[in-house]
Amino acid sequence: MPLHSLRNNLRSKADFTNDELDKILSCFQLKKIGKNQLFIKENCRVLYEAFVIKGCFKQYAIDQDYKEHILFFITNNMWISDISSFPNSQLSSTNVKALENSEVLIISVDDKQRLLEKFPKLEKMFNTMIQNSYVNLQDRLLNNLMKTAEENYLDFYHNYPNIAKKVTNVNLGSYIGVTPEFISIIRRRIFLKKK
Amino acid sequence: MPLHSLRNNLRSKADFTNDELDKILSCFQLKKIGKNQLFIKENCRVLYEAFVIKGCFKQYAIDQDYKEHILFFITNNMWISDISSFPNSQLSSTNVKALENSEVLIISVDDKQRLLEKFPKLEKMFNTMIQNSYVNLQDRLLNNLMKTAEENYLDFYHNYPNIAKKVTNVNLGSYIGVTPEFISIIRRRIFLKKK
Repeated sequence: MPLHSLRNNLRSKADFTNDELDKILSCFQLKKIGKNQLFIKENCRVLYEAFVIKGCFKQYAIDQDYKEHILFFITNNMWISDISSFPNSQLSSTNVKALENSEVLIISVDDKQRLLEKFPKLEKMFNTMIQNSYVNLQDRLLNNLMKTAEENYLDFYHNYPNIAKKVTNVNLGSYIGVTPEFISIIRRRIFLKKK
Repeated sequence: MPLHSLRNNLRSKADFTNDELDKILSCFQLKKIGKNQLFIKENCRVLYEAFVIKGCFKQYAIDQDYKEHILFFITNNMWISDISSFPNSQLSSTNVKALENSEVLIISVDDKQRLLEKFPKLEKMFNTMIQNSYVNLQDRLLNNLMKTAEENYLDFYHNYPNIAKKVTNVNLGSYIGVTPEFISIIRRRIFLKKK
C-alpha cells in the first residue's frame, strides 16, 4: 500500500514502464518517524531522502538566538530532501522534523544517485522537481517582501488548507515571520471582519 | 574576446572538448543592452537567456502598488534567465533590467534546448547552476527572516563588493526590503561606529 502511493506519484510524473517502476521502488524502505523526531539535521551529511506516505514535517533553519525559521511544511505525497546539500555533497543547511507520527519511504542518497544514472527519465523528473522547488521558494521570498503578515496568513490557508489544520500558531508564526501572539491577533481580526 | 569569456566559463564548469565548445558558442550572439533597458519582462514568454560579458542587471518583481522588489543583481560572468519560467515554458514571473550599459551573449531558449539534448555535460552544468541558484535563494530568504537590515547590508557589501559599488540606495533598499532613507541611516550608523 505505501509503495502503491509512490508508484502512482512516479507514474503521474513520467511514463515509466512497470519494470522500471519495480526496479526504482525496490530501492525504497518504509520507515516510521515519531512526532518531534528529526529526519535531516543541520550541518550533517544527508544520507537519506524520503517520500511522505502520511504525516507532516517542517523544514527549518535555526538562528544564533536558537529561534526557528520555517521554510516549508512537507506532507503526504511530497519529498523530503535538502537541495542545498546537493552541489558537491555539502552538509545540510536545514533541519527536517516530524510534526506528528509519520510514515515515509526512504532511499539512500547513494541508491538514488545510481537510479538517476540508470533512468534518465527519473533524473529529468527530479530536475523538474528542483525547478518547481525554486519557483515555490521564489514565491515565498517575494510574498515575504511584498505582503503583510495577514495576507501571507490568508494565502497559506488558501493554498495549503490540509497543512494549515495541522500546524500550531508557533509553527505558523515561524513560517510567516511573526510571533505566535501576532498570529492570534490576525486570527481575531479575520474573525471580526467575517462577523 | 566576448566569446572567450564564455569559453573560459564553460571550461571551468565541465571538461568540454574544443569541438564541443565551438558548437556551443556558435549558438550565441553578442548584444548590447542600454541602461534601463529590459531583457526579461514579467508575464511575457522568455525567448532568450544570456551570459553577461560586462554590465549589471537587477532581477525583480513588482507588487500591486508598483513597488519593485529585487531578488538578485547579475553581473559579469553570470547568467540571466528566469528559472520560474522553465517548467512547461510558463511566462516569466520577474523582470530583468540593465542598471548600466551592458554587453551580453544571448542564446534563444530553443537553441539552448537543442544544445542541452545534444550535450549531456551542458545539461548537467545547467542543472547544477539551478541547484546553486536554489541555495542562493534559500540563503536570501533565511537572511531576510533571520537578520536585521543592517546585518543584511553588511553581508551584501562583504559578499558582493563589486556590485555594491554600482547600485544606488534605492536599488539596495529594494533588495534588502527597506526604504532608501533607511539605507542612508544604516550607512551613517556604520560610519559612526568606525570612527
